[in-house]
Amino acid sequence: MKKVRVLVLGAGGVGVYFGGRLAQGGAEVSVVARSDYEAVKRQGGYHISSIAGDFTFVPAAVLHSASEFEGVADYVILSSKVLPEVRAVSLLQPVVLSSSTTIVQIQNGIDIEREIADAFPGNVLLSTIAYIGVSRPAPGNVLHQGSGMLKMGRYPSGIGKEAERLAELFAAGGVQCELYENIGRVRWQKLLWNLPFNPVSVLSGGADTRAMTNGDELEALCRALMEETARVAQACGENFDAGDLDAMMDYTRNFPPYKTSMLQDYEAGRPLEVEAILGNAVRLAEKHGLSVPRMECCYALLKSVDQNRQRNKK
Amino acid sequence: MKKVRVLVLGAGGVGVYFGGRLAQGGAEVSVVARSDYEAVKRQGGYHISSIAGDFTFVPAAVLHSASEFEGVADYVILSSKVLPEVRAVSLLQPVVLSSSTTIVQIQNGIDIEREIADAFPGNVLLSTIAYIGVSRPAPGNVLHQGSGMLKMGRYPSGIGKEAERLAELFAAGGVQCELYENIGRVRWQKLLWNLPFNPVSVLSGGADTRAMTNGDELEALCRALMEETARVAQACGENFDAGDLDAMMDYTRNFPPYKTSMLQDYEAGRPLEVEAILGNAVRLAEKHGLSVPRMECCYALLKSVDQNRQRNKK
Repeated sequence: MKKVRVLVLGAGGVGVYFGGRLAQGGAEVSVVARSDYEAVKRQGGYHISSIAGDFTFVPAAVLHSASEFEGVADYVILSSKVLPEVRAVSLLQPVVLSSSTTIVQIQNGIDIEREIADAFPGNVLLSTIAYIGVSRPAPGNVLHQGSGMLKMGRYPSGIGKEAERLAELFAAGGVQCELYENIGRVRWQKLLWNLPFNPVSVLSGGADTRAMTNGDELEALCRALMEETARVAQACGENFDAGDLDAMMDYTRNFPPYKTSMLQDYEAGRPLEVEAILGNAVRLAEKHGLSVPRMECCYALLKSVDQNRQRNKK
Repeated sequence: MKKVRVLVLGAGGVGVYFGGRLAQGGAEVSVVARSDYEAVKRQGGYHISSIAGDFTFVPAAVLHSASEFEGVADYVILSSKVLPEVRAVSLLQPVVLSSSTTIVQIQNGIDIEREIADAFPGNVLLSTIAYIGVSRPAPGNVLHQGSGMLKMGRYPSGIGKEAERLAELFAAGGVQCELYENIGRVRWQKLLWNLPFNPVSVLSGGADTRAMTNGDELEALCRALMEETARVAQACGENFDAGDLDAMMDYTRNFPPYKTSMLQDYEAGRPLEVEAILGNAVRLAEKHGLSVPRMECCYALLKSVDQNRQRNKK
């Protein structure tokens, strides 16, 4: 039987980890590497230190750019960060040449699929959310420290054979990949957490999850931001009630304190996913005529923080 | 004629500068110095570099603490920063022993007089707002770089002979000191500017006045915060209309770009006047049942920023 052909675009920690698992599951996985290229060529693959056991991921091909990929991919995994300077459609263009290629978007944020769906109307798009603690401490090296599951569904809704086939490959590689008829709801659910806690952790001068749930003004702000998010979700057709939000606050309060991924990015000097997490939600609120003053406030501040930092680095 | 006796408590840049001007105007001015004590003793006074001409201010007495002050002061000037750790009433207690002593509060913020008025009901309290660019680059040295005028009135309203007499002394020392029947309105007017621009300059990662008025989300946030402030002012009896706010935005937009005093404090690692500028306004809004979501948002964030920094310094 012919192997399933997978190409990973945006080979950071997330892309390399899940690409490596698909290879373990029996797929032929190629990778477009950038800053890692030399290291991966030299050491003959990626070294992945994982809580589930270390392994080496040897890609079928390590490429400088997507245009070097030969033939047709069954799946193209887009796992870069969602940043204004990353032109997702341009990245995909050279390798999404046939309607038989399925696009797998493993990215954070809300309303991030539309641009890709519009650009590739003849292709199946699998909207996918990763729950994983993973980083890339050095070129060619990936460190997997927590969780590692996926939630996936066809955009805008449904599942389909492409998702089922990929979920089987992930399962064969040891990754739990849950399929959802309505992946949109899952994205909103994740945003209910991400939208308050990620920006507030940065804007507060480095609050961890405990400091954001200790009963003072910062907790009230996170809760109010969560409510604003729920109102936007509702306008978009997904209802969450006060009990859902309480449960999320309780979960966070009772979890060992940790730094959000956005705070980690901030402290490491990396760009922040301001638009995918906050900007798109503000724009959806505007579209539906909703008032989201705290969201707008945090969006204006975080956008400025991110821009000031990028400017100061240059 | 007996000289007017003045004691300056909280001898930072503001207190030393205006104390020095009162001495030039003919008053007998003593100072409670802390970290400056040795330097002032050694050099025989304060060296003041001023855009209006350098001068040396030789206090009548340089004291370690207010309790060393002998006799009765006609005026006690309280010019420390408004911070939770500065107990204004305790500072004043040892020297406000007679109803003939007038308290002159030269401080920033809103609703900062009440605590002092309640503690010293038999004394005249002059609420005073300084418009000045002044700093203390080294112990015993003060640098006066901009403006230098005062607005003053009796708290809660009126003027009275104590204010008139002090204004004459200031005038004799070269300081313009305007008297107001309703100093409360002047404080709100200053807060309309301070409340948006000071916190946003810090929370935005260091935006100067130009960046906060360049037409994007940050300007919209500053304007919305100004409107929330105006609503609280209105509930407290002071009306400002949209034209007033437009004028303040235009003024800021057309001014050469500069860093707010709070941003300067932040960058120098000094504590921020979070409560005087934001916390008190939020509490007044609560008292009047007003919704001020952006103000609450910035308050929660700025309080955390300030606390995290103080903690990290220790």
